[in-house]
Amino acid sequence: MLAVFGHTNPDTDAISSALVYAHLLTRLGVPAQAYRLGDLNFETAFVLRELRMEAPPMLPALAAGTPVALVDHNESGQSAPNIAELTVTRVVDHHKLGDLTTSQPPFLRFEPVGCTGTILLKLHREAGLDVEALDAKLMLSAILSDTLHFRSPTTTQDDRDAVAFLAPVAGVTDVEAYALAMFAAKSDLGDTPAAQLLKMDYKVFPFGEPAQQWGVGVIETTNPAYVFGRKEELLRAMDEARAEDGLNGVLLSVVDILNETNRTFVLSATEEKVLREAFGVEATDGVADLGNRISRKKQIVPTLERYFAPEA
Amino acid sequence: MLAVFGHTNPDTDAISSALVYAHLLTRLGVPAQAYRLGDLNFETAFVLRELRMEAPPMLPALAAGTPVALVDHNESGQSAPNIAELTVTRVVDHHKLGDLTTSQPPFLRFEPVGCTGTILLKLHREAGLDVEALDAKLMLSAILSDTLHFRSPTTTQDDRDAVAFLAPVAGVTDVEAYALAMFAAKSDLGDTPAAQLLKMDYKVFPFGEPAQQWGVGVIETTNPAYVFGRKEELLRAMDEARAEDGLNGVLLSVVDILNETNRTFVLSATEEKVLREAFGVEATDGVADLGNRISRKKQIVPTLERYFAPEA
Repeated sequence: MLAVFGHTNPDTDAISSALVYAHLLTRLGVPAQAYRLGDLNFETAFVLRELRMEAPPMLPALAAGTPVALVDHNESGQSAPNIAELTVTRVVDHHKLGDLTTSQPPFLRFEPVGCTGTILLKLHREAGLDVEALDAKLMLSAILSDTLHFRSPTTTQDDRDAVAFLAPVAGVTDVEAYALAMFAAKSDLGDTPAAQLLKMDYKVFPFGEPAQQWGVGVIETTNPAYVFGRKEELLRAMDEARAEDGLNGVLLSVVDILNETNRTFVLSATEEKVLREAFGVEATDGVADLGNRISRKKQIVPTLERYFAPEA
Repeated sequence: MLAVFGHTNPDTDAISSALVYAHLLTRLGVPAQAYRLGDLNFETAFVLRELRMEAPPMLPALAAGTPVALVDHNESGQSAPNIAELTVTRVVDHHKLGDLTTSQPPFLRFEPVGCTGTILLKLHREAGLDVEALDAKLMLSAILSDTLHFRSPTTTQDDRDAVAFLAPVAGVTDVEAYALAMFAAKSDLGDTPAAQLLKMDYKVFPFGEPAQQWGVGVIETTNPAYVFGRKEELLRAMDEARAEDGLNGVLLSVVDILNETNRTFVLSATEEKVLREAFGVEATDGVADLGNRISRKKQIVPTLERYFAPEA
């Protein structure tokens, strides 16, 4: 049984794609089981409630050499704890290629599109398989989530085409209303502890040589006022994360989904200097206005990579 | 213009796949140009003569940041000299994933099949494009070459299906006769200097930690007697390669295509010991009989990797 899983701090694409790819592989004669590498966020919990589906189980400890399939990630730092000992036989992803290596020829399918779900739809069609309604709604939800319903600059025509194909199969007649319901669920953060809010959608990146380690969190929300109301708590959580994980810097971007803006919490003078020199923005009271740079993958991380890159 | 190229010491798949993928990308609206990273072998020269096609030009020096597409390889040691400075946007390959990384999400299409040509045929069909006769014959030739017309254990059902589809499109009515003509051309080594014979199909692999560097050459031939007639010269060329490239060991497998056997030239007691302990075979007069292990990728290199791997 092939274990299929997305990244740690799973989002809707990581969970949906694990479920959809495991089902697709099973239909193609490769028995597979989806797993998750962490708690569901509120958006993903909403999507699974809508579908009356159970969350995939947490990934158990896997023995060295166990074959696994990765979706929506490929870097070891975002994967199973002992990923280097496991046998990666398949990856479906839409991120840059990191430190993955394999000892045998793998199946790899990477495309520079907005969502893994978009690639999984292609795999169904290439295999000549119909798309079942549950899978359609999972892929649709993942694409709407990753692209913020086409608001993100990561959106491609393939993502739009996939949504146009999937919505009727999934029985979703008003796609924007469904997307807004997903985003509202994601924004209903309630009394989530600040440390958990910070790490909901959070990745650690190595920048430069010798590598600095930077934590970059994002909270995509339709209710930024709520997040700003918890700014002091979140700054404390960022400070703790920096100390605990031995990081050089920590940023937390509060992305206003509906207005497509990014105001980023800045922990200290270190981060202030980097944002000033890399993005040309000044922080005031621990907040830097990054304007419409709402994509960490496409707009924040590449700029930081260039800033920290050694001189050619 | 996207530069598309296969590995150094190009074989028929490396050359054919560069030509076919460049043409496919151009038809899909991504202007591309095929290049090669070395001289044609006799088999590939035969294929291009049959098709009255020019060889792709040698890859010129490319400025840092130039976008490139790789076919039939992904490891930096088998690629353009400054591959680490180039921007790899696409890879189509059927080898294990090595040290490749990218700074942006790439197109990657890896499948564990016998030949890159088999994957390129799928890309045509997925794009809804007809396969032109020249492209069909290039892909057909690559698949027959890489799989030794299905004799190699790397052969998959996908490769067989691709040949069945491509042969009529390419106008090849007797596939085995065409394959034998290719193999005869490959075996007509004439007065090729021994150093060149050794390096015709030759790769350097890192084994173990700290890594030992081993050169592993293969001569696939319908005329092994010719190669054995030049054994002393070839052993001298292997000794020179070891000294010049600072290698820990050098092996040269003489694969008899028609009888599906592998007799491997062994340079010294170092290689003798490794073959004894890894494969359980004894060398006599500098030759070890590796039986029907005719695939370097599937049968030689994995066994050496396991042999040199650090104890778990």
